[in-house]
Amino acid sequence: MTDSRDVTAEDQARHAQKMARIKAARDRMMTTRTGEKGLVIVHTGPGKGKSSSGFGMIMRCIGHGMPCAVVQFIKGNWDTGERRLLETHFPDICQIHVMGEGFTWETQDKRRDIAAAEAAWRKAQELIREPRNRMVLLDEINIAFRYGYLDPVEVVGFLAAEKPEMTHVVLTGRNAPPELIEAADLVSEIAVLKHPFRQGVKAQPGVEF
Amino acid sequence: MTDSRDVTAEDQARHAQKMARIKAARDRMMTTRTGEKGLVIVHTGPGKGKSSSGFGMIMRCIGHGMPCAVVQFIKGNWDTGERRLLETHFPDICQIHVMGEGFTWETQDKRRDIAAAEAAWRKAQELIREPRNRMVLLDEINIAFRYGYLDPVEVVGFLAAEKPEMTHVVLTGRNAPPELIEAADLVSEIAVLKHPFRQGVKAQPGVEF
Repeated sequence: MTDSRDVTAEDQARHAQKMARIKAARDRMMTTRTGEKGLVIVHTGPGKGKSSSGFGMIMRCIGHGMPCAVVQFIKGNWDTGERRLLETHFPDICQIHVMGEGFTWETQDKRRDIAAAEAAWRKAQELIREPRNRMVLLDEINIAFRYGYLDPVEVVGFLAAEKPEMTHVVLTGRNAPPELIEAADLVSEIAVLKHPFRQGVKAQPGVEF
Repeated sequence: MTDSRDVTAEDQARHAQKMARIKAARDRMMTTRTGEKGLVIVHTGPGKGKSSSGFGMIMRCIGHGMPCAVVQFIKGNWDTGERRLLETHFPDICQIHVMGEGFTWETQDKRRDIAAAEAAWRKAQELIREPRNRMVLLDEINIAFRYGYLDPVEVVGFLAAEKPEMTHVVLTGRNAPPELIEAADLVSEIAVLKHPFRQGVKAQPGVEF
Protein backbone atom coordinates (compact mmCIF):
# COMPACT_ATOMS: atom_id res chain seq x y z
CA MET A 1 0.00 0.00 0.00
CA THR A 2 2.83 2.48 0.78
CA ASP A 3 6.55 2.45 -0.08
CA SER A 4 7.47 1.78 3.52
CA ARG A 5 6.09 -1.70 3.13
CA ASP A 6 8.20 -2.68 0.09
CA VAL A 7 10.39 -5.55 1.19
CA THR A 8 13.95 -6.02 -0.07
CA ALA A 9 15.69 -9.41 0.04
CA GLU A 10 17.99 -8.12 2.79
CA ASP A 11 15.04 -6.78 4.78
CA GLN A 12 13.28 -10.12 4.37
CA ALA A 13 16.35 -12.05 5.59
CA ARG A 14 16.72 -9.78 8.63
CA HIS A 15 13.01 -10.18 9.41
CA ALA A 16 13.16 -13.99 9.13
CA GLN A 17 16.20 -14.11 11.42
CA LYS A 18 14.62 -11.86 14.05
CA MET A 19 11.34 -13.80 13.99
CA ALA A 20 13.22 -17.12 14.23
CA ARG A 21 14.93 -15.81 17.41
CA ILE A 22 11.57 -14.73 18.84
CA LYS A 23 10.06 -18.11 17.99
CA ALA A 24 12.96 -20.01 19.62
CA ALA A 25 12.62 -17.94 22.81
CA ARG A 26 8.87 -18.48 22.82
CA ASP A 27 9.10 -22.21 22.22
CA ARG A 28 11.65 -22.49 25.08
CA MET A 29 9.34 -20.50 27.32
CA MET A 30 6.35 -22.69 26.41
CA THR A 31 8.12 -25.93 27.38
CA THR A 32 8.48 -24.65 30.93
CA ARG A 33 4.75 -23.84 31.08
CA THR A 34 3.12 -27.19 31.11
CA GLY A 35 0.86 -26.87 34.12
CA GLU A 36 -2.89 -26.82 33.90
CA LYS A 37 -5.12 -25.64 36.70
CA GLY A 38 -8.36 -23.89 37.33
CA LEU A 39 -7.60 -20.19 37.68
CA VAL A 40 -8.99 -17.44 39.83
CA ILE A 41 -9.23 -14.56 37.35
CA VAL A 42 -9.98 -10.94 38.26
CA HIS A 43 -10.93 -8.12 35.88
CA THR A 44 -10.92 -4.80 37.65
CA GLY A 45 -10.18 -1.10 37.15
CA PRO A 46 -12.34 1.82 36.00
CA GLY A 47 -12.10 1.13 32.25
CA LYS A 48 -14.61 -0.52 29.93
CA GLY A 49 -14.37 -4.21 29.11
CA LYS A 50 -14.46 -6.03 32.46
CA SER A 51 -17.86 -7.68 32.00
CA SER A 52 -17.52 -8.00 28.21
CA SER A 53 -14.25 -9.82 28.68
CA GLY A 54 -15.79 -12.18 31.24
CA PHE A 55 -18.62 -12.93 28.83
CA GLY A 56 -16.10 -13.38 26.02
CA MET A 57 -14.42 -16.13 28.07
CA ILE A 58 -17.80 -17.74 28.79
CA MET A 59 -18.48 -17.78 25.02
CA ARG A 60 -15.06 -19.38 24.45
CA CYS A 61 -15.94 -22.12 26.94
CA ILE A 62 -19.24 -22.71 25.16
CA GLY A 63 -17.34 -22.86 21.86
CA HIS A 64 -15.13 -25.59 23.34
CA GLY A 65 -18.13 -27.47 24.70
CA MET A 66 -17.17 -26.74 28.33
CA PRO A 67 -20.17 -26.36 30.69
CA CYS A 68 -20.12 -23.06 32.55
CA ALA A 69 -22.27 -20.64 34.55
CA VAL A 70 -22.82 -16.94 35.21
CA VAL A 71 -24.08 -15.12 38.29
CA GLN A 72 -24.83 -11.43 37.81
CA PHE A 73 -24.47 -9.67 41.15
CA ILE A 74 -25.67 -6.22 40.15
CA LYS A 75 -27.07 -5.53 36.72
CA GLY A 76 -30.31 -7.31 37.39
CA ASN A 77 -32.59 -4.80 35.75
CA TRP A 78 -30.77 -4.55 32.46
CA ASP A 79 -32.09 -6.61 29.61
CA THR A 80 -28.60 -7.38 28.43
CA GLY A 81 -27.64 -8.87 25.12
CA GLU A 82 -25.50 -11.48 26.87
CA ARG A 83 -28.32 -12.67 29.06
CA ARG A 84 -30.77 -12.99 26.19
CA LEU A 85 -28.19 -14.82 24.09
CA LEU A 86 -27.31 -17.34 26.80
CA GLU A 87 -30.92 -18.00 27.76
CA THR A 88 -32.05 -18.39 24.15
CA HIS A 89 -29.22 -20.41 22.65
CA PHE A 90 -27.24 -22.19 25.34
CA PRO A 91 -29.44 -23.12 28.33
CA ASP A 92 -28.00 -26.67 28.36
CA ILE A 93 -24.34 -25.72 28.60
CA CYS A 94 -24.45 -22.38 30.46
CA GLN A 95 -26.66 -21.45 33.40
CA ILE A 96 -27.24 -17.75 33.98
CA HIS A 97 -28.62 -16.41 37.25
CA VAL A 98 -29.48 -12.75 37.56
CA MET A 99 -29.49 -12.13 41.30
CA GLY A 100 -28.88 -8.40 41.70
CA GLU A 101 -31.77 -5.96 41.69
CA GLY A 102 -30.15 -3.20 39.71
CA PHE A 103 -27.51 -0.76 40.84
CA THR A 104 -27.53 -0.01 44.52
CA TRP A 105 -28.40 3.64 43.87
CA GLU A 106 -31.61 2.44 42.23
CA THR A 107 -32.86 0.32 45.13
CA GLN A 108 -31.69 2.70 47.93
CA ASP A 109 -32.42 -0.14 50.32
CA LYS A 110 -29.35 -1.52 52.03
CA ARG A 111 -31.05 -4.54 53.61
CA ARG A 112 -32.50 -5.60 50.27
CA ASP A 113 -29.10 -5.12 48.58
CA ILE A 114 -27.36 -7.24 51.23
CA ALA A 115 -29.96 -9.97 50.96
CA ALA A 116 -29.59 -9.99 47.17
CA ALA A 117 -25.78 -10.15 47.39
CA GLU A 118 -25.91 -12.99 49.93
CA ALA A 119 -28.37 -14.96 47.80
CA ALA A 120 -26.14 -14.43 44.76
CA TRP A 121 -23.11 -15.67 46.71
CA ARG A 122 -24.99 -18.80 47.88
CA LYS A 123 -25.92 -19.53 44.25
CA ALA A 124 -22.31 -18.91 43.20
CA GLN A 125 -21.02 -21.39 45.81
CA GLU A 126 -23.44 -24.02 44.56
CA LEU A 127 -22.36 -23.49 40.92
CA ILE A 128 -18.64 -23.55 41.78
CA ARG A 129 -19.05 -26.79 43.76
CA GLU A 130 -20.82 -28.47 40.80
CA PRO A 131 -17.97 -30.50 39.26
CA ARG A 132 -19.50 -30.27 35.76
CA ASN A 133 -18.87 -26.51 35.52
CA ARG A 134 -15.50 -25.64 34.02
CA MET A 135 -15.88 -21.88 34.44
CA VAL A 136 -18.07 -19.73 36.69
CA LEU A 137 -18.33 -15.96 36.07
CA LEU A 138 -19.23 -13.80 39.08
CA ASP A 139 -20.15 -10.62 37.23
CA GLU A 140 -19.81 -7.36 39.22
CA ILE A 141 -19.18 -9.19 42.51
CA ASN A 142 -16.54 -6.55 43.32
CA ILE A 143 -19.34 -3.98 43.70
CA ALA A 144 -20.80 -6.15 46.48
CA PHE A 145 -17.39 -6.16 48.24
CA ARG A 146 -17.04 -2.42 47.73
CA TYR A 147 -20.28 -1.65 49.58
CA GLY A 148 -19.54 -4.17 52.32
CA TYR A 149 -22.38 -6.50 51.28
CA LEU A 150 -20.00 -9.46 51.04
CA ASP A 151 -16.79 -10.23 52.91
CA PRO A 152 -13.83 -10.84 50.55
CA VAL A 153 -12.08 -12.95 53.20
CA GLU A 154 -14.99 -15.35 53.23
CA VAL A 155 -15.13 -15.55 49.42
CA VAL A 156 -11.37 -16.08 49.06
CA GLY A 157 -11.48 -18.72 51.82
CA PHE A 158 -14.25 -20.59 50.01
CA LEU A 159 -12.32 -20.54 46.71
CA ALA A 160 -9.19 -21.90 48.41
CA ALA A 161 -11.08 -24.62 50.29
CA GLU A 162 -13.85 -25.71 47.95
CA LYS A 163 -13.22 -24.70 44.32
CA PRO A 164 -12.58 -27.89 42.33
CA GLU A 165 -8.97 -27.89 41.10
CA MET A 166 -9.74 -27.51 37.38
CA THR A 167 -12.58 -24.97 37.63
CA HIS A 168 -11.91 -21.39 36.52
CA VAL A 169 -13.65 -18.63 38.50
CA VAL A 170 -13.79 -15.15 36.97
CA LEU A 171 -14.63 -12.17 39.22
CA THR A 172 -15.32 -8.75 37.71
CA GLY A 173 -16.04 -5.19 38.77
CA ARG A 174 -14.05 -2.11 39.69
CA ASN A 175 -12.29 -1.81 43.06
CA ALA A 176 -11.35 -5.46 43.54
CA PRO A 177 -10.37 -5.82 47.22
CA PRO A 178 -6.68 -6.50 48.05
CA GLU A 179 -7.51 -9.92 49.57
CA LEU A 180 -8.93 -11.04 46.22
CA ILE A 181 -6.02 -9.66 44.17
CA GLU A 182 -3.61 -11.44 46.53
CA ALA A 183 -5.44 -14.76 46.07
CA ALA A 184 -5.95 -14.52 42.28
CA ASP A 185 -3.84 -16.20 39.59
CA LEU A 186 -4.56 -13.66 36.85
CA VAL A 187 -5.44 -10.02 37.42
CA SER A 188 -6.13 -7.48 34.67
CA GLU A 189 -6.69 -3.83 35.46
CA ILE A 190 -8.51 -1.80 32.84
CA ALA A 191 -7.85 1.92 32.63
CA VAL A 192 -10.00 4.31 30.63
CA LEU A 193 -8.04 6.52 28.27
CA LYS A 194 -11.11 7.95 26.54
CA HIS A 195 -14.85 7.55 27.05
CA PRO A 196 -17.73 8.59 24.77
CA PHE A 197 -19.86 9.71 27.75
CA ARG A 198 -17.55 12.72 27.83
CA GLN A 199 -18.75 13.60 24.33
CA GLY A 200 -22.42 13.38 25.35
CA VAL A 201 -22.96 9.93 23.86
CA LYS A 202 -25.28 7.66 25.83
CA ALA A 203 -24.96 3.94 26.67
CA GLN A 204 -25.75 1.96 23.55
CA PRO A 205 -26.82 -1.66 22.91
CA GLY A 206 -23.94 -3.92 21.90
CA VAL A 207 -21.39 -1.59 23.47
CA GLU A 208 -22.54 -1.02 27.05
CA PHE A 209 -25.17 -3.72 27.56
CA MET B 1 -22.83 -13.44 57.35
CA THR B 2 -20.61 -11.22 59.51
CA ASP B 3 -21.49 -8.59 62.10
CA SER B 4 -20.24 -5.80 59.86
CA ARG B 5 -23.24 -6.34 57.65
CA ASP B 6 -25.89 -5.95 60.32
CA VAL B 7 -27.92 -2.90 59.39
CA THR B 8 -29.34 -0.49 61.94
CA ALA B 9 -32.25 1.81 61.12
CA GLU B 10 -29.90 4.80 61.24
CA ASP B 11 -27.43 3.04 58.97
CA GLN B 12 -30.26 2.21 56.58
CA ALA B 13 -31.47 5.83 56.48
CA ARG B 14 -27.94 7.12 55.83
CA HIS B 15 -27.50 4.56 53.07
CA ALA B 16 -30.82 5.44 51.40
CA GLN B 17 -29.94 9.16 51.50
CA LYS B 18 -26.49 8.62 50.06
CA MET B 19 -27.80 6.39 47.29
CA ALA B 20 -30.60 8.86 46.49
CA ARG B 21 -27.93 11.53 46.02
CA ILE B 22 -25.90 9.25 43.75
CA LYS B 23 -29.03 8.39 41.76
CA ALA B 24 -29.98 12.04 41.32
CA ALA B 25 -26.47 12.90 40.08
CA ARG B 26 -26.52 9.95 37.73
CA ASP B 27 -29.96 10.71 36.36
CA ARG B 28 -28.88 14.32 35.73
CA MET B 29 -25.77 13.09 33.95
CA MET B 30 -27.79 10.68 31.81
CA THR B 31 -30.14 13.40 30.54
CA THR B 32 -27.14 15.23 29.04
CA ARG B 33 -26.00 12.08 27.28
CA THR B 34 -28.60 11.53 24.66
CA GLY B 35 -26.45 11.14 21.56
CA GLU B 36 -26.15 7.91 19.65
CA LYS B 37 -23.40 7.22 17.18
CA GLY B 38 -21.28 4.44 15.87
CA LEU B 39 -18.11 4.39 17.96
CA VAL B 40 -14.50 3.69 17.17
CA ILE B 41 -13.46 1.54 20.14
CA VAL B 42 -9.88 0.52 20.96
CA HIS B 43 -8.76 -2.14 23.44
CA THR B 44 -5.03 -2.02 23.96
CA GLY B 45 -2.31 -2.55 26.58
CA PRO B 46 -0.32 -5.62 27.62
CA GLY B 47 -2.97 -7.18 29.88
CA LYS B 48 -5.38 -10.04 29.18
CA GLY B 49 -8.90 -9.38 27.98
CA LYS B 50 -8.57 -7.30 24.80
CA SER B 51 -9.82 -9.95 22.38
CA SER B 52 -12.22 -11.53 24.90
CA SER B 53 -13.80 -8.16 25.48
CA GLY B 54 -14.18 -7.57 21.73
CA PHE B 55 -15.85 -10.95 21.40
CA GLY B 56 -18.04 -10.19 24.40
CA MET B 57 -19.34 -7.10 22.59
CA ILE B 58 -19.94 -9.13 19.43
CA MET B 59 -21.98 -11.63 21.50
CA ARG B 60 -23.97 -8.71 22.96
CA CYS B 61 -24.77 -7.51 19.44
CA ILE B 62 -25.91 -11.01 18.48
CA GLY B 63 -28.06 -11.09 21.63
CA HIS B 64 -29.72 -7.85 20.50
CA GLY B 65 -30.22 -9.21 16.96
CA MET B 66 -27.70 -6.72 15.48
CA PRO B 67 -25.78 -8.10 12.47
CA CYS B 68 -22.01 -7.89 12.95
CA ALA B 69 -18.69 -9.21 11.66
CA VAL B 70 -15.21 -10.21 12.83
CA VAL B 71 -11.87 -10.12 11.02
CA GLN B 72 -8.99 -11.85 12.81
CA PHE B 73 -5.74 -10.25 11.67
CA ILE B 74 -3.29 -12.56 13.41
CA LYS B 75 -4.43 -15.63 15.25
CA GLY B 76 -5.27 -17.56 12.08
CA ASN B 77 -3.88 -20.88 13.19
CA TRP B 78 -5.64 -21.09 16.51
CA ASP B 79 -8.76 -23.16 16.64
CA THR B 80 -10.43 -20.71 18.95
CA GLY B 81 -13.60 -21.25 20.90
CA GLU B 82 -15.00 -17.95 19.59
CA ARG B 83 -14.51 -18.89 15.98
CA ARG B 84 -16.10 -22.29 16.37
CA LEU B 85 -19.03 -20.82 18.25
CA LEU B 86 -19.73 -18.10 15.67
CA GLU B 87 -19.38 -20.44 12.70
CA THR B 88 -21.57 -23.12 14.26
CA HIS B 89 -24.37 -21.08 15.79
CA PHE B 90 -24.55 -17.64 14.21
CA PRO B 91 -23.46 -17.72 10.55
CA ASP B 92 -26.52 -15.68 9.50
CA ILE B 93 -25.98 -12.76 11.87
CA CYS B 94 -22.17 -12.69 12.27
CA GLN B 95 -19.55 -13.24 9.60
CA ILE B 96 -16.10 -14.30 10.78
CA HIS B 97 -13.05 -14.10 8.53
CA VAL B 98 -9.76 -15.51 9.72
CA MET B 99 -7.19 -13.77 7.55
CA GLY B 100 -3.91 -13.95 9.50
CA GLU B 101 -1.62 -16.92 9.16
CA GLY B 102 -0.58 -17.24 12.76
CA PHE B 103 1.80 -15.07 14.73
CA THR B 104 4.48 -13.41 12.66
CA TRP B 105 7.23 -15.34 14.48
CA GLU B 106 5.63 -18.53 13.18
CA THR B 107 5.61 -17.57 9.48
CA GLN B 108 9.01 -15.76 9.51
CA ASP B 109 8.06 -14.45 6.08
CA LYS B 110 7.54 -10.71 5.96
CA ARG B 111 6.10 -10.59 2.43
CA ARG B 112 3.52 -13.22 3.31
CA ASP B 113 2.62 -11.39 6.54
CA ILE B 114 2.16 -8.09 4.68
CA ALA B 115 0.03 -9.75 2.00
CA ALA B 116 -2.14 -11.37 4.73
CA ALA B 117 -2.55 -8.06 6.62
CA GLU B 118 -3.48 -6.20 3.42
CA ALA B 119 -6.02 -8.86 2.44
CA ALA B 120 -7.50 -8.69 5.95
CA TRP B 121 -7.77 -4.90 5.72
CA ARG B 122 -9.51 -5.12 2.31
CA LYS B 123 -12.02 -7.56 3.82
CA ALA B 124 -12.47 -5.25 6.83
CA GLN B 125 -13.21 -2.27 4.57
CA GLU B 126 -15.82 -4.29 2.71
CA LEU B 127 -17.51 -5.37 5.97
CA ILE B 128 -17.47 -1.84 7.42
CA ARG B 129 -19.02 -0.42 4.23
CA GLU B 130 -21.85 -2.99 4.37
CA PRO B 131 -24.69 -0.93 5.91
CA ARG B 132 -26.25 -4.04 7.49
CA ASN B 133 -23.35 -4.53 9.92
CA ARG B 134 -23.81 -2.71 13.24
CA MET B 135 -20.43 -3.70 14.66
CA VAL B 136 -17.19 -4.87 13.05
CA LEU B 137 -14.39 -6.30 15.23
CA LEU B 138 -10.84 -6.03 13.84
CA ASP B 139 -9.14 -8.47 16.18
CA GLU B 140 -5.38 -7.94 16.73
CA ILE B 141 -5.14 -5.32 13.97
CA ASN B 142 -2.77 -3.35 16.22
CA ILE B 143 -0.14 -6.08 15.74
CA ALA B 144 -0.25 -5.36 11.99
CA PHE B 145 0.33 -1.65 12.72
CA ARG B 146 3.15 -2.49 15.14
CA TYR B 147 5.13 -4.41 12.53
CA GLY B 148 4.49 -1.80 9.85
CA TYR B 149 2.27 -4.13 7.79
CA LEU B 150 -0.56 -1.59 7.74
CA ASP B 151 -0.49 2.20 7.91
CA PRO B 152 -2.62 3.58 10.80
CA VAL B 153 -3.06 6.89 8.94
CA GLU B 154 -4.71 5.07 6.08
CA VAL B 155 -6.99 3.06 8.40
CA VAL B 156 -8.02 6.11 10.45
CA GLY B 157 -8.66 8.05 7.23
CA PHE B 158 -10.92 5.28 5.95
CA LEU B 159 -12.91 5.18 9.20
CA ALA B 160 -13.42 8.97 9.11
CA ALA B 161 -14.45 9.00 5.46
CA GLU B 162 -16.35 5.78 4.90
CA LYS B 163 -17.59 4.22 8.15
CA PRO B 164 -21.40 4.47 8.20
CA GLU B 165 -22.44 6.81 11.01
CA MET B 166 -24.10 4.19 13.22
CA THR B 167 -21.57 1.38 12.80
CA HIS B 168 -19.28 0.51 15.72
CA VAL B 169 -15.74 -0.57 14.85
CA VAL B 170 -13.68 -2.30 17.57
CA LEU B 171 -9.89 -2.54 17.14
CA THR B 172 -7.81 -4.70 19.50
CA GLY B 173 -4.20 -5.58 20.19
CA ARG B 174 -1.37 -4.20 22.27
CA ASN B 175 0.58 -1.11 21.17
CA ALA B 176 -2.29 0.78 19.52
CA PRO B 177 -0.66 3.56 17.45
CA PRO B 178 -1.13 7.18 18.60
CA GLU B 179 -3.02 8.09 15.40
CA LEU B 180 -5.66 5.48 16.25
CA ILE B 181 -5.96 6.51 19.91
CA GLU B 182 -6.39 10.11 18.80
CA ALA B 183 -9.18 9.16 16.39
CA ALA B 184 -11.03 6.75 18.72
CA ASP B 185 -14.13 7.52 20.82
CA LEU B 186 -13.48 4.92 23.51
CA VAL B 187 -10.05 3.62 24.51
CA SER B 188 -9.39 1.04 27.23
CA GLU B 189 -5.89 0.10 28.25
CA ILE B 190 -5.47 -3.22 30.00
CA ALA B 191 -2.57 -3.68 32.39
CA VAL B 192 -1.49 -7.03 33.75
CA LEU B 193 -1.16 -7.13 37.53
CA LYS B 194 -0.60 -10.90 37.70
CA HIS B 195 -0.26 -13.62 35.07
CA PRO B 196 -0.36 -17.42 35.53
CA PHE B 197 2.43 -17.91 32.92
CA ARG B 198 4.75 -16.70 35.69
CA GLN B 199 3.66 -19.69 37.79
CA GLY B 200 4.43 -22.15 34.96
CA VAL B 201 0.79 -22.55 33.91
CA LYS B 202 0.23 -22.90 30.16
CA ALA B 203 -2.40 -21.33 27.87
CA GLN B 204 -5.70 -23.11 28.50
CA PRO B 205 -8.93 -23.45 26.50
CA GLY B 206 -11.66 -21.04 27.60
CA VAL B 207 -9.13 -18.70 29.16
CA GLU B 208 -6.56 -17.97 26.46
CA PHE B 209 -8.23 -19.23 23.28
